[in-house]
Amino acid sequence: MAKVAVIYHSGFGHTKRQAEAVARGAEEVSDIEVVIYSVAEAGEDIDVFDDADAIIFGCPTYMGNVSADMKKFQEIAASKWFSMGWKDKIAGAFTNSSSFSGDKMNTLSSIMINAMQHGMIYVGTAMFPAPNETDALENLEGPSSNALNRVGSSMGPAASSFQVNPPQAPGAGDIATAEAYGQRVANITLQFKRGRG
Amino acid sequence: MAKVAVIYHSGFGHTKRQAEAVARGAEEVSDIEVVIYSVAEAGEDIDVFDDADAIIFGCPTYMGNVSADMKKFQEIAASKWFSMGWKDKIAGAFTNSSSFSGDKMNTLSSIMINAMQHGMIYVGTAMFPAPNETDALENLEGPSSNALNRVGSSMGPAASSFQVNPPQAPGAGDIATAEAYGQRVANITLQFKRGRG
Amino acid sequence: MAKVAVIYHSGFGHTKRQAEAVARGAEEVSDIEVVIYSVAEAGEDIDVFDDADAIIFGCPTYMGNVSADMKKFQEIAASKWFSMGWKDKIAGAFTNSSSFSGDKMNTLSSIMINAMQHGMIYVGTAMFPAPNETDALENLEGPSSNALNRVGSSMGPAASSFQVNPPQAPGAGDIATAEAYGQRVANITLQFKRGRG
Amino acid sequence: MAKVAVIYHSGFGHTKRQAEAVARGAEEVSDIEVVIYSVAEAGEDIDVFDDADAIIFGCPTYMGNVSADMKKFQEIAASKWFSMGWKDKIAGAFTNSSSFSGDKMNTLSSIMINAMQHGMIYVGTAMFPAPNETDALENLEGPSSNALNRVGSSMGPAASSFQVNPPQAPGAGDIATAEAYGQRVANITLQFKRGRG
Repeated sequence: MAKVAVIYHSGFGHTKRQAEAVARGAEEVSDIEVVIYSVAEAGEDIDVFDDADAIIFGCPTYMGNVSADMKKFQEIAASKWFSMGWKDKIAGAFTNSSSFSGDKMNTLSSIMINAMQHGMIYVGTAMFPAPNETDALENLEGPSSNALNRVGSSMGPAASSFQVNPPQAPGAGDIATAEAYGQRVANITLQFKRGRG
Repeated sequence: MAKVAVIYHSGFGHTKRQAEAVARGAEEVSDIEVVIYSVAEAGEDIDVFDDADAIIFGCPTYMGNVSADMKKFQEIAASKWFSMGWKDKIAGAFTNSSSFSGDKMNTLSSIMINAMQHGMIYVGTAMFPAPNETDALENLEGPSSNALNRVGSSMGPAASSFQVNPPQAPGAGDIATAEAYGQRVANITLQFKRGRG
Repeated sequence: MAKVAVIYHSGFGHTKRQAEAVARGAEEVSDIEVVIYSVAEAGEDIDVFDDADAIIFGCPTYMGNVSADMKKFQEIAASKWFSMGWKDKIAGAFTNSSSFSGDKMNTLSSIMINAMQHGMIYVGTAMFPAPNETDALENLEGPSSNALNRVGSSMGPAASSFQVNPPQAPGAGDIATAEAYGQRVANITLQFKRGRG
Repeated sequence: MAKVAVIYHSGFGHTKRQAEAVARGAEEVSDIEVVIYSVAEAGEDIDVFDDADAIIFGCPTYMGNVSADMKKFQEIAASKWFSMGWKDKIAGAFTNSSSFSGDKMNTLSSIMINAMQHGMIYVGTAMFPAPNETDALENLEGPSSNALNRVGSSMGPAASSFQVNPPQAPGAGDIATAEAYGQRVANITLQFKRGRG
C-alpha cells in the first residue's frame, strides 16, 4: 500500500475540480490510498502528511505565480523542512488559469522548486503536447478542449478555463489530463515504495 | 532617431516570419531605424549593435529552452558583457513553438535573464491575454489563431504554430502580436532615448 | 520630478533594511521623490501608486519564492492590472535570504514576471558579479560581505544574511548594492519620464 | 544492478571535475554501474543511454543559462523524446560558475524542464543550505569553500569557482557536494528499479 495526498487551493472551484480529478486518477491504481485536503485544512493538520508517500500540490495561477493561499501553506509546511520531514516523498504539481499560457509555467516550476527544497522527488506529466497525438496536424487552431495535455505542459497538468465557470470548466481534456497524471504519480509512488530495501 | 535591432534564429522559418513582423512593427514608428540579423550573421559582426538603442531577440523553443543557435550567439555576445557594452539598451524577446505552452515561457525568461546580465532594460507585451479583449467569454476552446496574444504571454510574443509550415504559420494573430510588440518596443526606445540628459 | 515607490515585506527586519537602502539610493538622485510602504500599508491604499513613475518590490525568499505576504499584495494589486493601471511604470525587485543562493533567483524572476503582466518596464542591477571588480581573483572563498553584488545577481539585489539579525545584517556590501540599485532605477525613471512626448 | 550515466560539458575543466565527483559518488553505491560521457561523445552515440536507469546532466552556467554545447546535445537527444525513450529514467543536474549565484539557478531549472519533457523523474540535492549544518551562525561571510552545499542550491549541486582554475577549483565543499549528490541519485535509482513490478 502507498498513500498519495492531494493538497490544493481553489478560488472559484476550477482547481478543486482539477484536484478531484488528480485524486480520482490516483485512486484507480490498486493498493493506493488517496487523501485530499484544501490548503486551509492541510495547514491546520500538517502532521497528517508524515506518512504520505506522495504529495501533489495544486493551485490557480494568479498574477503569474502560485496563489497567496498556496504560498501561505508552503510557509506553514516549512516546519517540515526544518527536519527534512518530507524528504524522498514523491511530489507533483498542477494549476489552472484563464488563458492557454498566462505564465502558468512559473506556478509549476515554483512548486517544483519548493518540492526540491523539501528533498522530494519530482514527477511531471510525461505526456506529449496534444497535437502530436492527434490527426489535426494542419490546424492552426490547435487541439480542442477535449485533448489530453492541450497546452503542452511537461511539469504538471495546466488547465485553461478562460472565463467559463465550474462545473463546465476545466474542460474534458483538462480533467482527463489531471486523472492520467494522478494515475502516473500513484504508479511511480508504488514502484518507489516497493523498492525500499 | 533611434535604432532597433532584431536578432533571431529560425529553424524552419516560423521564427523568421515572427522576427520580420516585429521589425515591421518597429518600422511603423516615426524616427525609428530597424536592422534585422540572423544569429549567424549577428555573431560574425557583433560590433554592429554597439549603436543600437534596442535589441529584440527571438528564437524557437526547442526542448524547453532557447535554441542552441541562439545560445551560441549569446556566448559570442559575452564579449560585450565584459565591458557592459549593451548596458541600458532596451531589450525584448519572442519565441515560437508547436504547442500553446510547451515550456515557451522558459525561453522568454532565459532571454530576459541574459538581458539582465547585460544591464539592459526589459520590455514585455503589455497585452492582456486574448479572451479579456474578446466577447467569446464562455468558450472553452479559447481564442482563435486570429487573436492578439492568444496564449496570454506577458514577457514577449509567444507564437503557437503546431505542425503548420510557413507562410501559413505563425497565424494572423501571432503575426499581429509580433507587429504590435515591435511597435511598443520602438516607442519605448524612442522615449527613453529622447530623455537622455 | 519623478516619483519612485518602494513596496516591501519584511519578516524579521532584513528586507526592511534593504528596502530603506534602496529608497536612500533613489533619494540621492535630484528631482526624485521617494515613498516607501510595507505591503500591509500598500495593500490598504493601492491607488496611492497611480502617480508613481517606478515601483520597486522587495521581500524575503521563503521556501524558494516570494513571501506569502508579498504574494497577497500582488493579488490585491491585480485590481490595477484589470485596467493596465501600472503600464509603462518602471519596475524593480530585491530580496534577502539566509544563504548565498537559496533559490532567491525564483523570487526575483517571479516579481519580474508579475511586473511584465502589469506591462511595466523592468530594470536590473547592471552590476558585474563581485569578483570581476576585485583583485581577489584567486580566492575560492569568494568576495566578502563588503562586496557590491556579492552573489552575482543580475535581476535585482540579492542579500545573504545567514543567521545574522538586523541591524548587523544585511552586511555592508548588500546594503551598498541596494543603494546603488535604488540610484540606478531612479536615474532610469527620470530619463524615461523626461522623454515623454 | 542499475546504471547511472553522467553527461557533461566543461569549458575549462571545472564542470568536468564536478562530473567526475558525481560519478565517483554514484560508484560508491553497491550494485551501481556508472558511465561518464562528455556531451560531444554522448551526442555521437545517443543510443548508449537507452539502458541507463538514470542520467545526470551537468554544464557550466554561461550568460545565465546552460552552455550552448549542452543545449546542442539536448537538441540531439530530442530524437529520444519523439518516442519518449527516456521516460521514467531518473534525472539530475549540476552546474558550475564563477560567482555564488550568477543566475546558476536558471541552468538547473532549465535542465529540469528538459528532463520533464522527456518524462524523467527529477532528483535534487535534499541538502540544507550550508549554514544550517554548521556552528558559524553569526558569520556574515557565510560558509567556507569546504562546506557542503555552500550556496544553498536545492535542484542540484551548484559550484562557485570564481577565477580559480582546476584542479584547485571547484573547492573541497563543492566536490563533496557533487559526490554526495551522485550517491543520492544512485540510491534512489536503485530503489526505483528494485520496485519494478
